[in-house]
Amino acid sequence: MNYRIEIGHGSGGQMTRRLIRDLFMKNFRNKWLDADGDSAVMQTYGNNIAMTTDSHVVSPIFFPGGDLGKLAVCGTVNDLAVVGAKPEWITAGFILEEGLSINTLERIVISMADEARKAGVHIVAGDTKVVKKGQADQIYINTAGVGTVDDKCLHISSGKKIKNDDVILINGTIGDHEAAIINAREQFFESSRLRSDCASVNQQVHELLNQCNSIKFMRDVTRGGLAGILTELANMTENGIEIKEADIPCNDAVMAFCETLGFDPLQLANEGRFVTILSKDEAQNAMEILNNFNDNKPACIGLITSAHPGQVVMETAIGGKRLIETPWAAKTPRIC
Amino acid sequence: MNYRIEIGHGSGGQMTRRLIRDLFMKNFRNKWLDADGDSAVMQTYGNNIAMTTDSHVVSPIFFPGGDLGKLAVCGTVNDLAVVGAKPEWITAGFILEEGLSINTLERIVISMADEARKAGVHIVAGDTKVVKKGQADQIYINTAGVGTVDDKCLHISSGKKIKNDDVILINGTIGDHEAAIINAREQFFESSRLRSDCASVNQQVHELLNQCNSIKFMRDVTRGGLAGILTELANMTENGIEIKEADIPCNDAVMAFCETLGFDPLQLANEGRFVTILSKDEAQNAMEILNNFNDNKPACIGLITSAHPGQVVMETAIGGKRLIETPWAAKTPRIC
Repeated sequence: MNYRIEIGHGSGGQMTRRLIRDLFMKNFRNKWLDADGDSAVMQTYGNNIAMTTDSHVVSPIFFPGGDLGKLAVCGTVNDLAVVGAKPEWITAGFILEEGLSINTLERIVISMADEARKAGVHIVAGDTKVVKKGQADQIYINTAGVGTVDDKCLHISSGKKIKNDDVILINGTIGDHEAAIINAREQFFESSRLRSDCASVNQQVHELLNQCNSIKFMRDVTRGGLAGILTELANMTENGIEIKEADIPCNDAVMAFCETLGFDPLQLANEGRFVTILSKDEAQNAMEILNNFNDNKPACIGLITSAHPGQVVMETAIGGKRLIETPWAAKTPRIC
Repeated sequence: MNYRIEIGHGSGGQMTRRLIRDLFMKNFRNKWLDADGDSAVMQTYGNNIAMTTDSHVVSPIFFPGGDLGKLAVCGTVNDLAVVGAKPEWITAGFILEEGLSINTLERIVISMADEARKAGVHIVAGDTKVVKKGQADQIYINTAGVGTVDDKCLHISSGKKIKNDDVILINGTIGDHEAAIINAREQFFESSRLRSDCASVNQQVHELLNQCNSIKFMRDVTRGGLAGILTELANMTENGIEIKEADIPCNDAVMAFCETLGFDPLQLANEGRFVTILSKDEAQNAMEILNNFNDNKPACIGLITSAHPGQVVMETAIGGKRLIETPWAAKTPRIC
């Protein structure tokens, strides 16, 4: 193989998956990486710790609903939370472009500190590199995180307990983050109603895991959107997935944005949403728990089915059926 | 304060220290960060884990003695090792510039995998972001690492046990890495004899900790060089430091490089060297252990003294005394 890296390789779609499989997984091969969760879960001294990383290159660095600093903390907190971990410690690696205003950097740092406090995590180590003007775009932040995992949550990251008729919940509206970022950049619309959903979800995940016994799987909805997560999940399990378009929450402003510009809300990234798969009989209870959190609009969007293994099928708003495919590659760079 | 980020803020000298203190430490404040070690050491389930991060932006990405991939693994392995941790798991966050050749990326990834194998660590989680052409310089890699720390090594990162008359060892020659990088970039000299010392030191650290009982402190010699580390250490303790220029190992090629171009070898970075502080009576034993490792040239370079608290004084090769100061800011960007 000889080709060149394209924007699509960072999109979270099929191009990214192939690059990860053919290059990173192939060469770094180990059981933790092969598990392919949002975080790796390892045993040490007989206890379980989860570990994850994300580099954040979002542009613009300040956007409605958040900023790079907030996103850098949420992203890593959420990757830990959805494997059933209690996020504890975070590291922060800064790549700064020469000429960055210290006031800008300070706003980002304060935002990180605020979000860390809210999420109950500690930023325990860091690193600062400076590159010349033109070798970065203002500031990139990597965060890595470590959390502790209860034995009873160990199955969450594998999804191995998922069964026919389990239901799929989402905690809120889809597409908000990516729509807000694209709009902040291109100013297609007056932006007041397009706001990122960027938020740490660890407290709501914690409540769900505490109060429900039948949770089988969780994943946060980021690059690749709901379509990306559900198709990946269908590939992981031996089951299929059925979802109902009418049940998927989506803000009017995001819907209008998508209809006007030709985006599919199922393929747009969030930064404060996650799907939960659990037994039908606990769905109502879980919905009530999720309802207690600000900005949530929980919904039961579908279920696991044996009807079409490996496939995600959506009943459209007008009653048709649509096969949902893994996005190939979003065209939008730097959404997170 | 309102100023702009300069190259010197990433140099590891006083400018970096001030930025860290006034911005990051101030806002992220917690006991782990305040401990200010190469890695943070936390307790979980009654056991100790260490955590660290480094973003790697070295240019050129391939250089005599190593490459970006090898460096990204060594850097994090070494930061863990010198706080007395056994490095276990590493995450890798890639920021790729659009247009990067996949062959180049593959060489870097294979190099990371090789070094991880050598060091006995596992790359368990990763992330890939792509930015547009001109928003990065080919490839930047963040690695974060986690290791486990024995109770008996907990004092290593604080240096609190350091006492008068303890001796200071270094495991090899100084300045090699930075001299090799600068020369690879500028081609001042035929480069064959200027090679980076880039290497994982966790195995030699492990042997030292296993076989010596009196190790008080370790730190790897990176940005800021030996001068940076020793002046920081003198500030941390209530003692002073005396070193002898004649005893500090330095390759002829690096010496010639420094003399010709006006660099101070004490201020140049290494990537495979660390200093160890221990009791005088174990120094010989430690030297023998270090001698068993390839590429090492261990030396006893000085001692802890009560004579001039907080100061590092060097007896020069011609018998004079020189006060060693913390480098303000190296002019060379992207050495690691």
